[in-house]
Amino acid sequence: MVVDKVSDLVSEPLVHSFGDGRASSVDRNLLGGKGSGLAEMSRLGIPVPPGFTITTDVCNSYFANGRTFPSELSTEVSLGLARIEEISGAIFGDPGNPLLLSVRSGARVSMPGMMDTILNLGLNDETAEGLATATKNARFAYDSYRRFVQMYGDVVMGVGKLTETDQDPFEMILNAKKIERNIQQDTEFSVLDLRELVTEFKELIFLRSGQSFPDNVTDQLWGAIGAVFESWDTPRAVSYRSINGYSSSWGTAVNVQAMVFGNFGNDSGTGVLFTRNPSTGENRLFGEYLVNAQGEDVVAGIRTPQPLLAEPDTSLDGNSLEETMPEVFAELASACDLLEKSFHDMQDIEFTMQQGKLWILQARSGKRSGAAMVKICADLVKEGILLENDALRKLDPNQLNEMLHPIFKQPIEQEVIASGLAAAPGAAVGMVVFSPTDVVRLASEDKDVILVRDETSPEDIDGMNLAKGILTARGGMTSHAAVVARGMGLPCVTGCNDLRIDYQKSQFSIESSSGTLVVKEGDVISIDGGTGQVILGSATLTEAVPPIEYDEVMSWVDAGRSLRIRANADTPGDAKKAREFGAEGIGLCRTEHMFFAADRIHSVRKMILAGSDVERISALEELLPHQRDDFTGILRAMSGFPVTIRLLDPPLHEFLPQSSSDISELADALNISVDELTSRVHALEEVNPMLGHRGVRLAVTYPEIYQMQTRAIIEAACDLMSEGVDVEPEIMIPLVGLGSELQQLRTLIYETAEIVLQERACEIEFLVGTMIEVPRACVVAGEISEHADFFSFGTNDLTQTTFGFSRDDVGKFLPDYLAKGILTNDPFVEIDRDGVGGLIIQAVEAGRKRKPDLKMGICGEHGGDPSSIYFCHSIGLNYVSASPYRVPIARLAAAQAAIEFAAS
Amino acid sequence: MVVDKVSDLVSEPLVHSFGDGRASSVDRNLLGGKGSGLAEMSRLGIPVPPGFTITTDVCNSYFANGRTFPSELSTEVSLGLARIEEISGAIFGDPGNPLLLSVRSGARVSMPGMMDTILNLGLNDETAEGLATATKNARFAYDSYRRFVQMYGDVVMGVGKLTETDQDPFEMILNAKKIERNIQQDTEFSVLDLRELVTEFKELIFLRSGQSFPDNVTDQLWGAIGAVFESWDTPRAVSYRSINGYSSSWGTAVNVQAMVFGNFGNDSGTGVLFTRNPSTGENRLFGEYLVNAQGEDVVAGIRTPQPLLAEPDTSLDGNSLEETMPEVFAELASACDLLEKSFHDMQDIEFTMQQGKLWILQARSGKRSGAAMVKICADLVKEGILLENDALRKLDPNQLNEMLHPIFKQPIEQEVIASGLAAAPGAAVGMVVFSPTDVVRLASEDKDVILVRDETSPEDIDGMNLAKGILTARGGMTSHAAVVARGMGLPCVTGCNDLRIDYQKSQFSIESSSGTLVVKEGDVISIDGGTGQVILGSATLTEAVPPIEYDEVMSWVDAGRSLRIRANADTPGDAKKAREFGAEGIGLCRTEHMFFAADRIHSVRKMILAGSDVERISALEELLPHQRDDFTGILRAMSGFPVTIRLLDPPLHEFLPQSSSDISELADALNISVDELTSRVHALEEVNPMLGHRGVRLAVTYPEIYQMQTRAIIEAACDLMSEGVDVEPEIMIPLVGLGSELQQLRTLIYETAEIVLQERACEIEFLVGTMIEVPRACVVAGEISEHADFFSFGTNDLTQTTFGFSRDDVGKFLPDYLAKGILTNDPFVEIDRDGVGGLIIQAVEAGRKRKPDLKMGICGEHGGDPSSIYFCHSIGLNYVSASPYRVPIARLAAAQAAIEFAAS
Repeated sequence: MVVDKVSDLVSEPLVHSFGDGRASSVDRNLLGGKGSGLAEMSRLGIPVPPGFTITTDVCNSYFANGRTFPSELSTEVSLGLARIEEISGAIFGDPGNPLLLSVRSGARVSMPGMMDTILNLGLNDETAEGLATATKNARFAYDSYRRFVQMYGDVVMGVGKLTETDQDPFEMILNAKKIERNIQQDTEFSVLDLRELVTEFKELIFLRSGQSFPDNVTDQLWGAIGAVFESWDTPRAVSYRSINGYSSSWGTAVNVQAMVFGNFGNDSGTGVLFTRNPSTGENRLFGEYLVNAQGEDVVAGIRTPQPLLAEPDTSLDGNSLEETMPEVFAELASACDLLEKSFHDMQDIEFTMQQGKLWILQARSGKRSGAAMVKICADLVKEGILLENDALRKLDPNQLNEMLHPIFKQPIEQEVIASGLAAAPGAAVGMVVFSPTDVVRLASEDKDVILVRDETSPEDIDGMNLAKGILTARGGMTSHAAVVARGMGLPCVTGCNDLRIDYQKSQFSIESSSGTLVVKEGDVISIDGGTGQVILGSATLTEAVPPIEYDEVMSWVDAGRSLRIRANADTPGDAKKAREFGAEGIGLCRTEHMFFAADRIHSVRKMILAGSDVERISALEELLPHQRDDFTGILRAMSGFPVTIRLLDPPLHEFLPQSSSDISELADALNISVDELTSRVHALEEVNPMLGHRGVRLAVTYPEIYQMQTRAIIEAACDLMSEGVDVEPEIMIPLVGLGSELQQLRTLIYETAEIVLQERACEIEFLVGTMIEVPRACVVAGEISEHADFFSFGTNDLTQTTFGFSRDDVGKFLPDYLAKGILTNDPFVEIDRDGVGGLIIQAVEAGRKRKPDLKMGICGEHGGDPSSIYFCHSIGLNYVSASPYRVPIARLAAAQAAIEFAAS
Repeated sequence: MVVDKVSDLVSEPLVHSFGDGRASSVDRNLLGGKGSGLAEMSRLGIPVPPGFTITTDVCNSYFANGRTFPSELSTEVSLGLARIEEISGAIFGDPGNPLLLSVRSGARVSMPGMMDTILNLGLNDETAEGLATATKNARFAYDSYRRFVQMYGDVVMGVGKLTETDQDPFEMILNAKKIERNIQQDTEFSVLDLRELVTEFKELIFLRSGQSFPDNVTDQLWGAIGAVFESWDTPRAVSYRSINGYSSSWGTAVNVQAMVFGNFGNDSGTGVLFTRNPSTGENRLFGEYLVNAQGEDVVAGIRTPQPLLAEPDTSLDGNSLEETMPEVFAELASACDLLEKSFHDMQDIEFTMQQGKLWILQARSGKRSGAAMVKICADLVKEGILLENDALRKLDPNQLNEMLHPIFKQPIEQEVIASGLAAAPGAAVGMVVFSPTDVVRLASEDKDVILVRDETSPEDIDGMNLAKGILTARGGMTSHAAVVARGMGLPCVTGCNDLRIDYQKSQFSIESSSGTLVVKEGDVISIDGGTGQVILGSATLTEAVPPIEYDEVMSWVDAGRSLRIRANADTPGDAKKAREFGAEGIGLCRTEHMFFAADRIHSVRKMILAGSDVERISALEELLPHQRDDFTGILRAMSGFPVTIRLLDPPLHEFLPQSSSDISELADALNISVDELTSRVHALEEVNPMLGHRGVRLAVTYPEIYQMQTRAIIEAACDLMSEGVDVEPEIMIPLVGLGSELQQLRTLIYETAEIVLQERACEIEFLVGTMIEVPRACVVAGEISEHADFFSFGTNDLTQTTFGFSRDDVGKFLPDYLAKGILTNDPFVEIDRDGVGGLIIQAVEAGRKRKPDLKMGICGEHGGDPSSIYFCHSIGLNYVSASPYRVPIARLAAAQAAIEFAAS
């Protein structure tokens, strides 16, 4: 991690205070999301405990200077502390009236659970006793002390679980003590038990870390600040950033804030809420709380919480905050309303009640399901909180994904074996796996897996990201698993309490009246994150149904965009699906997939292994009727829209048999020996197939292949014309790097087409264009444009050749590039604007200079990526082409691009 | 072949006349070299037979319009013919005074023997008889008629050898007739024999081609014109152009000229000469002639010719032209002098004497050996014919090659088994091969071969190009083999009359007093093209000695250039050699070759297969002393000059064992199972290794590799400094595509170097720079330049990635690209100025914008290619780096570039 101008930091304030209706800054990049939210809330008059924020610049300085703090920091922290003491009236480290602090991380974007948090900081033997005296609640004081030592030992001093399956050593001591005392719950511990636990915890810390637990409260504070910074650089944080495309150079802020206590007795408590339902978008507070507890208890999902709103006809009747603490509830509801109106979005809020007084600990825009996102967007517009375009800008295009992917066909025929919380929508089928490491391994083998855990933790991020779905035995709607899964768009069922997981035996069991059901690792289950159902076996997937507001929101989207959206589709079925999703044509129809079909692969192989032009042409003649049928189906499905058909692209050896039985069968069919065939197959192998004999190069050596394909396209178009179908074929030549290549092939295509059109006495308008997918094509785009009716940027291959990164091999080093911050994004996911983008801009400018009306689009994977779509809009492309399921995403991203670009 | 503006041709004259001291055009591109030379000579008053030239535009039109002639051509040819008739007084097709014509091809560059020629056109039964009457020489008339029918049948009507080893059918008839008549020589045929031969030849033509020989002289002329054009498109012509990088779009002209006759009796003859000795450059006419013969007899080498100049003390005493025809000789010598002074160069001249009258048939700049080229350059300057810079422009840099490659160590220890003519300088050792096809096959297996033939022909071009040397049993210094070999810089011995080649048995034999020596195909021989010696077995090769003028010419070269010339060298020996050749530093020292040495490959493999960082670092520590020794040797050899050391570049799997015995040995050494090792080796394989885990990417994942190499370089530099050696190490990081990559690695290198410098208490100036070899690096060169002290363009990889052409696989399609004119040159040989060059220019501009003094060079294969060097000069690079043997070539090319660039 490198900071360019460390010296500049010195002149800025390193610490900003908030509380008591004031705040010295609300800059999100400087204070992080949490710090800036606290500062803004403070300014709004929301009751937030006083505190201060150490800026993200300090984090960068910390790493740039060998993990040391700037010299001015100490003074500024002291001043911040003094202000907290002034507002709260308590004194840090003073046994008479001890101020306790929370220390939390906070980056500019929310990274749930990724950064460590210390609560109750400031306790030692003296202040704990002082707190007990001041509050007349020794159990509370020593419970806080016990929690603090445990948390500090784990997070700051590194005494925790040694391996994933290891038990937490503090929990082991706690459990031993419970057995010793013959009690079930933490709340049953006596003050003496808690003091003993503190001593035992400190001994454990010394034994494991070789260092004493710091009794000096200032040492405690600096240790915690350092630990927050360190947690920015842990493998799990790095991994999360890499998955989400966040830069390591953002850094985290540190928020130091006066503690308030939800565990002060039964008039205290703590809770989390969303101002609207994050699964459905319903405009109704959605949350839960725990009486006499601290916040971590809710998120960790260890105890099952109570509802916020009354649920009259359920077993929870009377347990809600609305019923038990109506005044606090009213104040909370009013704060929620103010926060939504101020931040123009649904809020995710943490709150604590201390002896009946409400404190808002945190508020931020809440993560939500795709369906909720759409409904909330529509509702916020209807409620007058947002204008249409501003509402569209708040949508996350990728989240549309969730409501576009299949759900389970109803009724489900398989056995529903358990039910949990519907934590993240969507349906998934896969093998049961209990360890995130196994998920990573199996996913790399293209296995579909469901990760099943008691609960998840930030260490599990990599595995969660690769699973098809997540099922946990514990935790609520706001547990780690639920929040992360919603962010990833993964189906998730949490709090499925009937599950008994045995990690040692790699199985889970479910007890029921009919006996014990055992599900072993590798067995297939299905989970429905929209209903919470867990199903044994493979349930049938079917279409998802978007929320009722979807069409309205998408109509704003389509009105807002100027980019046309096409789909990449190789079959009539895909074309139909794409059209339903709003595609306005096909941007990439790959013809090679058609070559693999069982009824033609044999002819394809004969064509490839032909000993002469005559044999090759004869094999191509066998393929012609199949190709004509393919194109007829696709052109018909896209009637009225353009269909870009890419002529054969991959190296021919990809079509050849690999197994010895296939080879021997083919040798028989070709009437040559196995040795001869093996040798011919071998002769076609290449050292670097990506850069080999493929694309237009095939047609330079074997023009008859493109002649056959052109004939098939034009014959199909003529047939459809005669039926009155409106066809717009666009013939695309891949991998062109020279004007002369396109010139010769264009001539070939026109000559071939002319023959067919004369045979059929037919007239068809068609275009001939090219993929722009090698750097040379960008550099000489002006020359190429003279022979092209359109350019389609093939950004997959262009990224490979521009970087010199083989997409098949990049896995060996790309993770290191992301981890070390050399790349901030995977360039195969989000277009590399400086490099690949720079070449594309050259090509666009050179092409348009010679042909101002040259049609240009993009058909790589990037065509479905919102950031890349913004780029495409900004450089004036005419269309993007994405996979059918990403068409709505592309439509939204195109609208956002138009809105943002106009605003910029 | 495509012509852009065929319609424009119509308005230009299609035919230009020359002769009688006048010429209507001398445009070389339009008339070809031969036509333009004839026109210029005519204007100078040199005696050339009258004629006309059909332009190269007509050739292009012919191919662009389906092999048809423009409609205007017929009229223009008739006018040209009328003018020849007017000057010569003879009439085409008139039995009373028949005009005979030669029809020859002529492209803008000389392509010796590649294009077909027809002589004596205009003969039929009537005109032959008329010619006999007019000249009172029936033998001459019917000999000409016989030759014409034979040549026309072969070239125009396609009746010739069916296969390479087939006998010529006309020669078979000739030989049968000789046996029948019991005679040895063609000259012994009677008139009746010749008339019978004409009849038999016409029958052969009808039988083989199904068409009658045309008796109409106008039909003969049009047939010949078409045949010249057709010969432009034969595989052998296409192959020659592809080897020489000539464009198919240049086309050939057709030269139609009045025949003059060297076979008119003993006061007639024909000869060829160079105005200076083409092997040594000596300023003395060098040539030979045949009495009573036509030109083809000399070039074909069937009869052994007589010398031009007197050779008093030899067996040729009294046979020279100087002695036998002193007046003709004096006129010839005077014409040679005029031609040299007019064309400012040594000339290659064809002449004919008809009944004592001299005719110059052709004059052109003569091909010469490298040594002759240098001497002639120096002499022309001394003689005041050329200024230094103009003389340098006439040099062919590639020809310096010849005098820089090894010759045989003297005295030769092996048996000299035969001697022939020293036709092209240089020495070669290789297996005897009798067929050009076998040369191609064996050369592809990296075998060194000597092509041994009775004589060579244009069909053999491909094989000749791939042989190490050429040995022929017949032919003189101007035979096909000699001319072509000199052009290719290949050692060649011709006219080795003692050789008896038996193609059927694949062997040759040599009779001597001691018996018969048989050399079979596959036996190794050595040939010395500088002495004409043929040696049995493998003679020892040693350094060549350039001519005495070499240093003087190279001093002009060095004064004329601004580019610095470095060498690519990986060993102290190469570095020393490069320095001797004039290298001013090393531009590319590859470190991977060092890794393969027997004493370290084992450590390299341990490093690669290390299971942990600790194991890897331990293996690297084993390598450190070896690497330090490598760098010490190279830096010492280049003392006083910069040495650019490229850190490890290739994918690691290249170092791993492939054979099962190697694998099993390594597994033992690593103490793991063969299965485990095989699986680790397999895991390192890549789909596209060119785009895989290599270059800087290795260092991102394994920084310890570059740390070790940096330590080795800095330690070596410190050691040498303490000895007083002047070292200038430049550390180069390969495959950089991102500024952040170079930034991080530069930091690593500086940190590592700093540690070593402190340990050694040493101060060293060193640079850290990068290869620019992926397109992205060019696009973001400005950003990269901020972290670079220099750029070195790696044009091999940059060409691969810019085109998307794998150098290892391009053989599958590049020949088609060249044959179809899609590419005019192999971009791996001559830099692609538009594409790759365009990116380089972007990088140069962006780099210099941020760092005006950024040092820039090139270190790909192109660094030794003259055309590419011109490009490097024109864009302002500081240096090029070439292989040691190409350093003088690069020096000359750099000087030519500077001279041409200044003139342009």
